[in-house]
Amino acid sequence: MHNRTEFDSLRVVLVGTRNPLNIGAAARAMSNFGFLRLRVVNPYQVAFREARSAVGASAVLATAEEFKTVAEAVADCPLVVGTTSVGDRELHHPVRRLQEGARIILKQLRSSPVALIFGSEKVGLSNESFSYCNWLMRIPTREDHRSVNLGQAVAICMYELARESKPAKSVKPAAKPKAATAGEVERIVPVMLEALRNTSYFKPPETVHSEEKLRRLIHRLHLTQEDAQVLLGMLRQIAWKLRGGKD
Amino acid sequence: MHNRTEFDSLRVVLVGTRNPLNIGAAARAMSNFGFLRLRVVNPYQVAFREARSAVGASAVLATAEEFKTVAEAVADCPLVVGTTSVGDRELHHPVRRLQEGARIILKQLRSSPVALIFGSEKVGLSNESFSYCNWLMRIPTREDHRSVNLGQAVAICMYELARESKPAKSVKPAAKPKAATAGEVERIVPVMLEALRNTSYFKPPETVHSEEKLRRLIHRLHLTQEDAQVLLGMLRQIAWKLRGGKD
Repeated sequence: MHNRTEFDSLRVVLVGTRNPLNIGAAARAMSNFGFLRLRVVNPYQVAFREARSAVGASAVLATAEEFKTVAEAVADCPLVVGTTSVGDRELHHPVRRLQEGARIILKQLRSSPVALIFGSEKVGLSNESFSYCNWLMRIPTREDHRSVNLGQAVAICMYELARESKPAKSVKPAAKPKAATAGEVERIVPVMLEALRNTSYFKPPETVHSEEKLRRLIHRLHLTQEDAQVLLGMLRQIAWKLRGGKD
Repeated sequence: MHNRTEFDSLRVVLVGTRNPLNIGAAARAMSNFGFLRLRVVNPYQVAFREARSAVGASAVLATAEEFKTVAEAVADCPLVVGTTSVGDRELHHPVRRLQEGARIILKQLRSSPVALIFGSEKVGLSNESFSYCNWLMRIPTREDHRSVNLGQAVAICMYELARESKPAKSVKPAAKPKAATAGEVERIVPVMLEALRNTSYFKPPETVHSEEKLRRLIHRLHLTQEDAQVLLGMLRQIAWKLRGGKD
């Protein structure tokens, strides 16, 4: 088994889940494979309450954290990975096959938290949710029947993450610059947006789409913590000047 | 994908299943990964009927075969494998870890049918059912929480069996976005520099050092070709505005 500390750094994030049985099933699979940190974003309240009070509800559910937005739920994570099985929408993200993605996630977990997000039963993840992701991971289902049940999707991902687990290596990798968390990166978005609006870069009518596009671009930059700081400082100065040097 | 004929030689056998949702979930996971031959042994009749008539019930359920006994359900299979996650009873069988077991099953499927049997939600497989098995396969859950939900257990086993098969040719691999060349990235530097100079971001005396720092930061961004273009466009607009809207 991996060092439990590593598994503790994974946050499984369920977004907009409707069915209490699916929340329960996700929690159970997490517990089966040793991942105990569940976060729920804006679940159907009744569903979440029911799942929590179900007979045999696990410790995972008891300690689950609730968030209003995806942004808050992933704020402390430098790596945010979305899951998809459908893949028929226009995806603006790199998509990795589950086994490849899991390897990358495990590596990252050695040094920092990772968020793995699952969309709702009906529609999966929205484009807005996708915009917080560094990349996406796809369960390799067959083309004729791609869509995986939510509880089963979580189970398969947890299994794959635990599958290769070997005893943690005692060899420390060379100190790598710390990656910025999603929250740190996110702070750049509104500043850049403001600056661009003041230059009429966006042609009206401006759509939510423009904001999402910008967010995706910025989250794709692989910023280190320090670079994110520096960039934020630069953009703040630019935005301040563009609004006429007033605060 | 493995040759479909091979996948067609697997019989997933559910013994004494009580919950229609679990029968449905098992069928769905089978379909997701391309295993279409379901056999049910002595299921709770209501459960089986309900599962079959559920909205979206799959072709797997429509063609499921029903048997009175395990003996009949596995009669045509030279290899019979039982599943267990609990492992706390006295097992008189060799137990293989899922990934090892799956390899053996796949090999066998090339030449003859294999039965993979799953017990009921409550008690798993009985000793009588075990007695038909050549060996058992265990999903590697953690000791503190071994028991896996039936639908999830089937999903994990189907995933593992399909895991090593290559993606079907018609599924396009994620086209990896092309990385920007150093030259393309470099075009961003002077534009950003100009913008920053116009905001007095750099405190005088400005040194070569500031420019180098900015260059390093921008080259560290892992920009794709497309993102570099977009970013350059944004910064040009900003720089233009900061110099008073003049060219």
